[in-house]
Amino acid sequence: MSIIAGRAVPGTEGTIRAIDPSTNKALDPEFSKLGSAQVKEATEAAAKAFREYRATAPTDRAAFLDTIAEKIEGNREEIVERAMAETALPNARLTGEVGRTVGQLRLFAGVVREGNHHGVRIDPAQPERSPVPRLDIRQRRVPVGPVVVFGASNFPLAFSVAGGDTAAALAAGCPVIVKAHNAHPGTGELVGQAITEAAAESSMPAGVFSLVYGSGAEIGQQLAAEPAVSAIGFTGSRSGGLSLAATAAARTVPIPVYAEMSSINPVVMLDGALRSEGPGAQELAGQFVASLTGSSGQLCTAPGLVFVPTGEDGDAFVDAVSAGIEGKAGQTMLTQGIAEAFAKGVSALEDQQHAYTVGRGVTGEGENAPAPVVFSADLAELRSNPVLSNEVFGAASVILRYSDVDALAEALDELEGQLTVTLHATESDTDAANSLLPVLEDLAGRILFNGWPTGVEVGHAMVHGGPFPATSAPATTSVGSLAIDRFLRPVAYQSVPEGVLPEPVQDSNPWSLARQIDGKITRG
Amino acid sequence: MSIIAGRAVPGTEGTIRAIDPSTNKALDPEFSKLGSAQVKEATEAAAKAFREYRATAPTDRAAFLDTIAEKIEGNREEIVERAMAETALPNARLTGEVGRTVGQLRLFAGVVREGNHHGVRIDPAQPERSPVPRLDIRQRRVPVGPVVVFGASNFPLAFSVAGGDTAAALAAGCPVIVKAHNAHPGTGELVGQAITEAAAESSMPAGVFSLVYGSGAEIGQQLAAEPAVSAIGFTGSRSGGLSLAATAAARTVPIPVYAEMSSINPVVMLDGALRSEGPGAQELAGQFVASLTGSSGQLCTAPGLVFVPTGEDGDAFVDAVSAGIEGKAGQTMLTQGIAEAFAKGVSALEDQQHAYTVGRGVTGEGENAPAPVVFSADLAELRSNPVLSNEVFGAASVILRYSDVDALAEALDELEGQLTVTLHATESDTDAANSLLPVLEDLAGRILFNGWPTGVEVGHAMVHGGPFPATSAPATTSVGSLAIDRFLRPVAYQSVPEGVLPEPVQDSNPWSLARQIDGKITRG
Repeated sequence: MSIIAGRAVPGTEGTIRAIDPSTNKALDPEFSKLGSAQVKEATEAAAKAFREYRATAPTDRAAFLDTIAEKIEGNREEIVERAMAETALPNARLTGEVGRTVGQLRLFAGVVREGNHHGVRIDPAQPERSPVPRLDIRQRRVPVGPVVVFGASNFPLAFSVAGGDTAAALAAGCPVIVKAHNAHPGTGELVGQAITEAAAESSMPAGVFSLVYGSGAEIGQQLAAEPAVSAIGFTGSRSGGLSLAATAAARTVPIPVYAEMSSINPVVMLDGALRSEGPGAQELAGQFVASLTGSSGQLCTAPGLVFVPTGEDGDAFVDAVSAGIEGKAGQTMLTQGIAEAFAKGVSALEDQQHAYTVGRGVTGEGENAPAPVVFSADLAELRSNPVLSNEVFGAASVILRYSDVDALAEALDELEGQLTVTLHATESDTDAANSLLPVLEDLAGRILFNGWPTGVEVGHAMVHGGPFPATSAPATTSVGSLAIDRFLRPVAYQSVPEGVLPEPVQDSNPWSLARQIDGKITRG
Repeated sequence: MSIIAGRAVPGTEGTIRAIDPSTNKALDPEFSKLGSAQVKEATEAAAKAFREYRATAPTDRAAFLDTIAEKIEGNREEIVERAMAETALPNARLTGEVGRTVGQLRLFAGVVREGNHHGVRIDPAQPERSPVPRLDIRQRRVPVGPVVVFGASNFPLAFSVAGGDTAAALAAGCPVIVKAHNAHPGTGELVGQAITEAAAESSMPAGVFSLVYGSGAEIGQQLAAEPAVSAIGFTGSRSGGLSLAATAAARTVPIPVYAEMSSINPVVMLDGALRSEGPGAQELAGQFVASLTGSSGQLCTAPGLVFVPTGEDGDAFVDAVSAGIEGKAGQTMLTQGIAEAFAKGVSALEDQQHAYTVGRGVTGEGENAPAPVVFSADLAELRSNPVLSNEVFGAASVILRYSDVDALAEALDELEGQLTVTLHATESDTDAANSLLPVLEDLAGRILFNGWPTGVEVGHAMVHGGPFPATSAPATTSVGSLAIDRFLRPVAYQSVPEGVLPEPVQDSNPWSLARQIDGKITRG
């Protein structure tokens, strides 16, 4: 059931039920959908809670985030069980995702305690400066206001109700309204209850969190247009993200939409990596198949495009991929709709005259478990066949064969923006790697060497973003502690007396923050 | 004449001439307008120069910025003379603006040398971590690509060809294409030549800078749509900024528009400030009239709305404003169009039934020198008369009388976003000031105590931004060193070997940067 500012609220607009994707059968219970007046109420409760919440002390706000983590961990078994039924993801994956979710919340609790996100800068007065004295100017960042979060289908926990966007926004001092994902409504409810309990126990204003159920497109458009909403976090399809962005831009007061949308995560094999001094073709092919087929390929960072040199070593890689994927059983995908879109994407690749099928697995048990598949084509085909670089969400990938590094660099330069790009290289490839690095930097938010893009570490240095359409806001990240910047804006204080200045910019530095004084960073 | 990548290029699309606003007469010489193919050429030259320019060493890039400053300073007299003819701004103001412009360039040279903008974060590998080892992840920021800058009419130097946006973008590592402002084409040309000479002397790639002349709306739309352009900096009207933003959002690859657009800069008098323990009504009224009428009120930060308590002290303030403004002569405005828009805005205020004229100056000498004027109304009128809080660019302001601080806070909460908000207060007003502070923080980018918003210090802590419509991008500033963030985006490096890692994230820290290691800031 929806939660509006601490109260469970039945909706007035019909009901939905989760579907077990392995059987296509509906699961109990029903979840009622909110009417537009109810949705508005949630945003207004958030606006009302904003000033009280943003004034909470760092220790209290951090404790609130820690308490959410505790509540989720305390109910882990029930959450994982429900998520398994709603998503068909395996227990180990979901248990890991609980770990990542609570890890994120605790990371942001640490960020709140450390306080670097305040971005404090102080330019002290210079009364003697000529021709005019310099006045005292100080800067810190303040939260932007209520944030709406749309969770992802493929991460029912880590990118959902208490996922990265929620943790970052709460850490910044912004109330959060989560639109519950209709593919996992029960999982969302359990997590929403955990946050609600944590808010009550931590004496936070009730409007700090709401969870709203409704038809995705309609309620999404309403939330993006509600005047009380100040920013949006979204993980999902390109069309969904762009539609929210269009609505948000057309408001009387436009607001930012942080949408993580689309990526095919190119992986480049340089010569050395496939030769004997590197891991070799067999080993890399095995790693590739594992990265591609894990979670049925339903990861934003799944390797959808692999650049492999022509010649013997490249052939050996392709043969090993072929052998690795043959007979590999598909796993149930998240929803019937996703499985259908996958089939459509695969069919479009099959229709490419100049691409061929390297290998194909077999259909898995239960419904919606299509076979994983890998195609190959010559690099030159990429320019004339944009289908080869379209995102196919699921376990499908295209191997492109290149014969020289310049042509490879040109092809990479023409790709759309990506979340990740990966280089497999040994020391003998260093020159090529160095010449490619600027291309990779302009292409993606994260550059990996000798690894696989799936599996995103949640830390301070992570970037899960990149040029459009990887995200609508390339200057930010949706994973890692830098994500807090999305929900803050700078304010300068000129000649404000110590008794009125907020703590982070007071002379006495009561929060012991690292600060930039006259452009030089000083430790707190 | 336009400059494309170091070459003076005659345009193919007719000519424009500057107009002396004090006579409405055209000035020599003619400036030819570029055709669309020529405009495209400038953006493509920028794209071509991007990788070479972004790879320049910090010392070289900083020296380039310093050389631009030197060249401008070296030609100060000619620049000021031409700017006087084109804008009718007085010598002292323009000489000061040259100082601010070169100060900005040198500030950003310092930023490049200090290197805090790289935003380096390092999460070292933890091979022993269980259940999975942590990989080495490092983050720095890279420049976004070519930037187009649209200068302001009211700052022919500090917000124009070599203004804040240009300095910030060049410092970030982005080539710049400036659209020359048609109100001061000759001033723009002199500054553009200074940059071009500096680029050649500093051995920068020629495409690092271009200056293009054309019809504002057409060339603006083209520049916002050109695929080679990665970001836009704009200072000007709300309609101009929104039109660029709409074009930029509709591209295949949308790009950010950093538009500083509109602000009426509310000033609040609290009781104490007007009483004997404060500066008093006479003194504050004099300061207000000076702040309002300086540069004919043509400053983004001019005080367009003043909240004054009802009662004797407030009355004394209003009387003193009345006395101060009567007989005050108008100065020539920047263009005939601006003077006409001012007359229209003043006329709309005159039409307000519930507002009255506090005082009015006299028309100045020469053309386009309308009288400054101040109106007043009861605070309660604000809600029903949105005209009272419309921006009138020029020396017109509205005094609103309030009778209690709660009603004042409510009124401030309903205003649009502002560049600045100012409080005049003494110690006896501390409680009121503290209760208002969150309102002020949510309203504006800069909060001033006991000063006037005109006059923007260029330093590290300055924010010249604020909620929409003060700017289209409230998370950034267009003045001060934080502006460099507009033109950077983060990239993460996962397991990249030291021999391939860029300098800022190398273990050896060759640039001696302050860096965040595992979330803790360390000095370089």
